[in-house]
Amino acid sequence: MKVEIITVGNELTSGEVVDTNAAFMASAFTEKGFEVTYLTTVGDNEGRIEDALRRAQEHADAIIVSGGLGPTADDITASSAAKALGRRLIMNQEVLHTLRQRFAQRETEMPLANEKQALFPQQAEIIPNPLGTASGFILRHKGKIYAFLPGVPRELIFLLKESIIPLLEKERQEKVFYGSRTLKVFGFTESAIADRLKEINPQDRTTSLAYLPRFPENHVKIAVSGKSLQDVEKNLQDLEKIIREKLEGRVFAADQETLEEIVGHLLRSNRATLAVAESCTGGLIAHRLTNIAGSSDYFDRAVVAYSNRAKVEILQIPEELLASAGAVSAPVAEKMAEGVRQISQSTLGLGVTGIAGPGGGSEEKPVGTVFIALSSPKGTISKKYQFWGDREQIKIITAHTAIDWVRRYFLNQLSAVSNPPSRKRRTN
Amino acid sequence: MKVEIITVGNELTSGEVVDTNAAFMASAFTEKGFEVTYLTTVGDNEGRIEDALRRAQEHADAIIVSGGLGPTADDITASSAAKALGRRLIMNQEVLHTLRQRFAQRETEMPLANEKQALFPQQAEIIPNPLGTASGFILRHKGKIYAFLPGVPRELIFLLKESIIPLLEKERQEKVFYGSRTLKVFGFTESAIADRLKEINPQDRTTSLAYLPRFPENHVKIAVSGKSLQDVEKNLQDLEKIIREKLEGRVFAADQETLEEIVGHLLRSNRATLAVAESCTGGLIAHRLTNIAGSSDYFDRAVVAYSNRAKVEILQIPEELLASAGAVSAPVAEKMAEGVRQISQSTLGLGVTGIAGPGGGSEEKPVGTVFIALSSPKGTISKKYQFWGDREQIKIITAHTAIDWVRRYFLNQLSAVSNPPSRKRRTN
Repeated sequence: MKVEIITVGNELTSGEVVDTNAAFMASAFTEKGFEVTYLTTVGDNEGRIEDALRRAQEHADAIIVSGGLGPTADDITASSAAKALGRRLIMNQEVLHTLRQRFAQRETEMPLANEKQALFPQQAEIIPNPLGTASGFILRHKGKIYAFLPGVPRELIFLLKESIIPLLEKERQEKVFYGSRTLKVFGFTESAIADRLKEINPQDRTTSLAYLPRFPENHVKIAVSGKSLQDVEKNLQDLEKIIREKLEGRVFAADQETLEEIVGHLLRSNRATLAVAESCTGGLIAHRLTNIAGSSDYFDRAVVAYSNRAKVEILQIPEELLASAGAVSAPVAEKMAEGVRQISQSTLGLGVTGIAGPGGGSEEKPVGTVFIALSSPKGTISKKYQFWGDREQIKIITAHTAIDWVRRYFLNQLSAVSNPPSRKRRTN
Repeated sequence: MKVEIITVGNELTSGEVVDTNAAFMASAFTEKGFEVTYLTTVGDNEGRIEDALRRAQEHADAIIVSGGLGPTADDITASSAAKALGRRLIMNQEVLHTLRQRFAQRETEMPLANEKQALFPQQAEIIPNPLGTASGFILRHKGKIYAFLPGVPRELIFLLKESIIPLLEKERQEKVFYGSRTLKVFGFTESAIADRLKEINPQDRTTSLAYLPRFPENHVKIAVSGKSLQDVEKNLQDLEKIIREKLEGRVFAADQETLEEIVGHLLRSNRATLAVAESCTGGLIAHRLTNIAGSSDYFDRAVVAYSNRAKVEILQIPEELLASAGAVSAPVAEKMAEGVRQISQSTLGLGVTGIAGPGGGSEEKPVGTVFIALSSPKGTISKKYQFWGDREQIKIITAHTAIDWVRRYFLNQLSAVSNPPSRKRRTN
């Protein structure tokens, strides 16, 4: 089954926004074995939307359109679709009622502009949108399926996964089964991964591997097709096992799982708690850990000790040590980890100090110099890293590395930490 | 002059790669006043490349194609272009010679595959590419200009800026100047903004307003054209002034500026320092503040007091108060702000406590209940908010609101805070 994707919005034709929606949709369809023929983007322009809709009919069996369903005057996808496919626009009383209720629940009156979001082309099948005011809809026209979805990424993703893909899978004639698994890797470069996996690639036509850099992670996507779901699942499992072995513990998660989720599971199942003392990451480690629902069960507190005074006062780091070793040093990282562990009485204390830049670097400690320390019942371990990139990238990769330390601690891999060139140092 | 952009590559139609090239080109052309009509993406498929090239002729005066000029078998853009526009492929001896030299300089022999990169459709005007082996080329066909460029981002950007845009600017007849400004708004919904600005919209053909939701912000983009750069700049300034007035202090930044940058400027110019006590935002406020280079000048520390014990121990919040009012309450938010201000001796203390969900809500305090407090030399102020969304969204909008409080404090707008339905409460 062939799919064409049309994204609508002046913010796309003007280049203000990178079209991640199109890539997301293309990836979701490709994964399920649909062939994506064309991706087309037009601005909020009636003539061009109509033209794109008509032409797509020649290219594909299903046409997925996103964007232009909002309440403002420039949102004209529904009316353009009505025109292109020769239908009248009709007010859907049920949708209108639901919209009014939605606003009433928030104790505000519905702006007049939102009434427009209850206007659909004749015979539209409504796709309710629990996440926003723009309902999706389906039109069937000359044997083709047109699906219209909002452009807000989270609403689009939800409706695509929950409604559109299941619908198209049901309509599809061919009975081939597809499956994929994304393995998330941290600590190897893309080419190092490709090198380690080269023997299992190229494969036969039912299997493919793709390498997707997702800074600071690298993802390996396995896609498999087969005659039954069992075949597909078995193939995926076999390949996953091989790849995990070849990548020596650097695969930290699969598919939707995130590093902080995995670390949360490990803390919970080990009945352990964690406290964090951050400097150069400025709160990012705590922010990521607390993105997980229920993290209050194992995450006690973080101290973002940006000033030296904060390091002394809250984390009880000796002033003499800050003066002699410098705030960015292994002993200070260790004292931060130990200090926050002690005041919080947590199982683990994580300490991070470094130079995120662009200022503050020196010849001895250039921008990107970072010390990470972990204090645990087994003692305190620390390590120096030299990261590269701008301020944002250094914060991100430092936070990722530090959170990964907790994972590796529980898997007894921490002593094997050996990412970038570094010297190791232990106390206790 | 109308421009259509065509990007070619299986990695794009499969969604493995987000098409940042298309966005870059669209932005570069829009900035220079070209109208981008369509963005089309096709895989490395001869029939579809030909189809896209032929159709683009109806849409635009200039067609910019990127991708598919590499040495491997799947790179077929040049041969597809020759077919689509009815030309023969001819080996360009000069390009072939340059390619051979390029390899010779690196003391390697040119692989046979690279010979292909010297094959161009008849009458192609070559665009030399100093950064790679794929030369670009121009074809003129029925009054239209077709430009073919490599897909490697660095090479594409270079050739676009150095060759293609100057060429098209020379060919363009009209002498019109363009400019734009993006105003960033927080605290009004998209429809509330549109409502307030409806009198200045629709405008004449030289001006347009676009509304771009960027959760939790809303952006208003003013685009203006005119006969001189002065005209354009004057128009932009006049419109910006009117819009800022109509939006009553809710425009917090323009163009590339971010909220945390603006807040950083205000803290610095007022010689003030800031400390933060976060609960439900889990470090996000500190993370955002420290994304700004040099933030250590005004940001002292943050305490992410996730557990009640952390609130008592570090922020000196009375246990009785936590028991009587609850951790999510106005008096606790206020004590957090006062506590962190006091221990850090900062000018300002920000305190945030709330329920990010999905668990932890009650009838009295549902998920999304948030208290924000600011302690300053003028006293302490706090407010209850009811936010909507999932855990991530509640963290984001809470952090944004709290950081915006600092901005409004310096602009003496804080007493006028009145975002969502809420009750106000003050101490001191």
